[in-house]
Amino acid sequence: MQVQFTAAEIAALAEAKSSRGATHATVRGLAALAEAGPGDLSFLGNAKYKTEVPGTRASVVLLPADYTGEPAPDQLYLLVANPSVALARICARIERELWPRPAPGVHASAVVAPTARIAASATVGPLCVIEEGAVIGERAHVQAQVFVGRNAIVGDDSWLMPGVILAAECALGRRVRLQPGVVIGSDGFGYEFVQGRHEKVPQVGSVEIGDDVEIGANSTLDRARFSRTSVGEGTKIDNLVQIAHNVRIGRHCLICAQVGISGSATLEDYVVMGGQAGSAGHLTIGKGAKAGGRAGIVSDIPAGAFVNGNPAIPYMLERRIAVLSQRLPDLFKRVDAIADHLGLAKKSSS
Amino acid sequence: MQVQFTAAEIAALAEAKSSRGATHATVRGLAALAEAGPGDLSFLGNAKYKTEVPGTRASVVLLPADYTGEPAPDQLYLLVANPSVALARICARIERELWPRPAPGVHASAVVAPTARIAASATVGPLCVIEEGAVIGERAHVQAQVFVGRNAIVGDDSWLMPGVILAAECALGRRVRLQPGVVIGSDGFGYEFVQGRHEKVPQVGSVEIGDDVEIGANSTLDRARFSRTSVGEGTKIDNLVQIAHNVRIGRHCLICAQVGISGSATLEDYVVMGGQAGSAGHLTIGKGAKAGGRAGIVSDIPAGAFVNGNPAIPYMLERRIAVLSQRLPDLFKRVDAIADHLGLAKKSSS
Amino acid sequence: MQVQFTAAEIAALAEAKSSRGATHATVRGLAALAEAGPGDLSFLGNAKYKTEVPGTRASVVLLPADYTGEPAPDQLYLLVANPSVALARICARIERELWPRPAPGVHASAVVAPTARIAASATVGPLCVIEEGAVIGERAHVQAQVFVGRNAIVGDDSWLMPGVILAAECALGRRVRLQPGVVIGSDGFGYEFVQGRHEKVPQVGSVEIGDDVEIGANSTLDRARFSRTSVGEGTKIDNLVQIAHNVRIGRHCLICAQVGISGSATLEDYVVMGGQAGSAGHLTIGKGAKAGGRAGIVSDIPAGAFVNGNPAIPYMLERRIAVLSQRLPDLFKRVDAIADHLGLAKKSSS
Repeated sequence: MQVQFTAAEIAALAEAKSSRGATHATVRGLAALAEAGPGDLSFLGNAKYKTEVPGTRASVVLLPADYTGEPAPDQLYLLVANPSVALARICARIERELWPRPAPGVHASAVVAPTARIAASATVGPLCVIEEGAVIGERAHVQAQVFVGRNAIVGDDSWLMPGVILAAECALGRRVRLQPGVVIGSDGFGYEFVQGRHEKVPQVGSVEIGDDVEIGANSTLDRARFSRTSVGEGTKIDNLVQIAHNVRIGRHCLICAQVGISGSATLEDYVVMGGQAGSAGHLTIGKGAKAGGRAGIVSDIPAGAFVNGNPAIPYMLERRIAVLSQRLPDLFKRVDAIADHLGLAKKSSS
Repeated sequence: MQVQFTAAEIAALAEAKSSRGATHATVRGLAALAEAGPGDLSFLGNAKYKTEVPGTRASVVLLPADYTGEPAPDQLYLLVANPSVALARICARIERELWPRPAPGVHASAVVAPTARIAASATVGPLCVIEEGAVIGERAHVQAQVFVGRNAIVGDDSWLMPGVILAAECALGRRVRLQPGVVIGSDGFGYEFVQGRHEKVPQVGSVEIGDDVEIGANSTLDRARFSRTSVGEGTKIDNLVQIAHNVRIGRHCLICAQVGISGSATLEDYVVMGGQAGSAGHLTIGKGAKAGGRAGIVSDIPAGAFVNGNPAIPYMLERRIAVLSQRLPDLFKRVDAIADHLGLAKKSSS
Repeated sequence: MQVQFTAAEIAALAEAKSSRGATHATVRGLAALAEAGPGDLSFLGNAKYKTEVPGTRASVVLLPADYTGEPAPDQLYLLVANPSVALARICARIERELWPRPAPGVHASAVVAPTARIAASATVGPLCVIEEGAVIGERAHVQAQVFVGRNAIVGDDSWLMPGVILAAECALGRRVRLQPGVVIGSDGFGYEFVQGRHEKVPQVGSVEIGDDVEIGANSTLDRARFSRTSVGEGTKIDNLVQIAHNVRIGRHCLICAQVGISGSATLEDYVVMGGQAGSAGHLTIGKGAKAGGRAGIVSDIPAGAFVNGNPAIPYMLERRIAVLSQRLPDLFKRVDAIADHLGLAKKSSS
């Protein structure tokens, strides 16, 4: 992060109400209170870290307006309405420095089919391939070494990072952000077993991604057998996630890393899947349902439920059974003792 | 899916025996009965959806020859021997439109070593790298941004989709299909622990893929320590699967998404691994054995067995234990009641 | 593996003390005793395979100095101090043939920003993208179709294999080896839930990788929210591993395939994570702790502990509970028998 802010620039971005102390340092980094050093900006975002403020070595510290302590020498306290909000504003500015808006245009090394339609305000970076009939929307950023297949659509203001593959006929909404290595539109995993061999079932559907969706690095979304695999508006998907053919994911879901969703499953709006969880196919996970990390869903989940374990069951029950399972050695001993007491054989005859 | 068929073209492809009704619509899509609209083709592939036929809005419907209902206005029923087979025939035709056979030749932007041998009937697409001594077989399609390493072999009629990496010395059979982002020939994970450090064990073997194998997006197959990691003819591997060094996978296996197979494991022919399952290394999974989704295999599995759970045990036993586990709260209560009844302490003294 | 050694060359590389027999074969491959054929080199690395030596068809066999048997016709025995060490020496030589050191320089098809600094001894291969301010160290090998973002640093003697993506501002130490398709510096998965939508928390930190780290194919490491995600010196990471934002991994850890580490977790030095294991975030796994394959870590793990299961508990306890779980059908029967004996109802009334 090669940033560089004067204390005055930070104060302005943070909309500081007042300040205490002063620093000559240029801010070049951002760190938690306990880890910050000279040249860093830090902040008190959660009251439980209040005791770390006096000891921090950060040059500039964002603090709530009612904070009463005094800064160290060459240290500036900025009193703000909400340090987390102030920090987010500074981070958004850093983000623009980190990822400056690229100049519009098509890089000379990109290979673009004559029938592709690329908005004048879009950027197609080095070594991208844009095939026939593809559409790249206004201000879209197709960064580097990206593949956009035949008739695929990249919506306005979307950002495809290096190495993304958007296969033929698939469509992205607006403001979609695909992290590096995402594959959209690979074939669904469908075969018919005929005379000892798996014969391929052609996968001729597509994938449709709604507005404001973000998908993490190296995740894969298969095209439908026919019709479409879909991800609703505002849903966020983490890294190394597998979405099988004909899956329908609703709006504003959160799918954590390494989750797998099998074919034709439906996730309604606001579903949350913890890391490494999985779902069988041809079932429905109701609106707002949550699955814990590593949960294995094998049947319909009602709206609003919180499930855990494998197979996934209601969270509280799963927790209770997990605790009792750890008491199994004790239970076996007790049953032995009772049998002993009664003069019964210790082991059943079965 | 930018398809376009007249009703007459569909009737011919489906080898319809007879028809009822008529439509002026051009068929542009394909959808399930309940989801189809005007311009769609639909079909009755499973008798349980029979009640959905009268209500479908599809313009053309493929039906079994003994179906007795009447079409709606501007709707065509095509009576065929087997609607699923007729559909597959139409899908295969759509697939050819979706993925037209590319013109043979090497794209001007590809970087091809002088000693690589590329069949005249093969296609090497934009921004591919083909290294020294590599062989690209007849009619093979190396699509775009693909890497083919030194002395690697791509068999006749194989298709490497965008972003595939086939590392040096690895070999593909005929009609192999690699989905986007597949990596074949990464180093196996082998180290010796020497004086507090992990020293690399050179991985100098290769990977050999049989005829008619398909591998899903972003899956990884490691090269052997020496000799070879192998995948037998006709085996199908889904997305994000990890195959470690020196693994031997037999013929006609099905490996679902996110499965991991550890080093030197052997899967005999016709093994099926459910999604997110895993196997320890240096063991054998017998011919035709099946592992349920998320199963964790830690020891040899006999031929034909069906295992589940983690650690994986015979399916029926695992199901029974899962059910009994959910009754643990009840069992603990009962044992407490018995102890009470006998005047014994509720908790063991251990 | 297109190698070619005369028997004399093998003898020299192996530093053979003496030999028995002779062969005219050229060594072109390397195989286990039972699988080797004419033209192969084999070895007795583990005494338990001693009985396989007389039957091997290998042309050259590396044997311990005290081995007493006699070779077959056209077969050479080489007696060495330690056959495994001799083999490693030969494999290292093969590795250099398999992966010859590339000539320094930048390939004409690479796209390199004018402000990137590339050491004269480094190699930047075909179709790579090197962005502004990036630094490529001495003798580094950026192989093909690699992306190195703005201000990213590739340390001396590091090797980035085809398709690697090293995003802006991230830094690699020396002798780092990234297998194909690795993504370093994707955005962390961070959102705030505001008025029914997930708003992105900017991820403006970086990733720092220590010296001698190796990372497996298609693994993903997210950049920090701010500050850095880090991997310590000498740590080895396998394929398809997910490392979330702000994770800190110590030195000399082993992270097997498909492991996932959630945000802000700390792994101290010498931690070992088995395949498909996972860890929740914001916790610490102590120095030298080990987690079995598929373990699910949900709380701090003390240094040196060995845990297993999901949720992960001490290994021996987990094994005992797993065994007792399989005896649950028996336990239920016994409790029924006791209740029967006492004239109590078989089922609790709850």
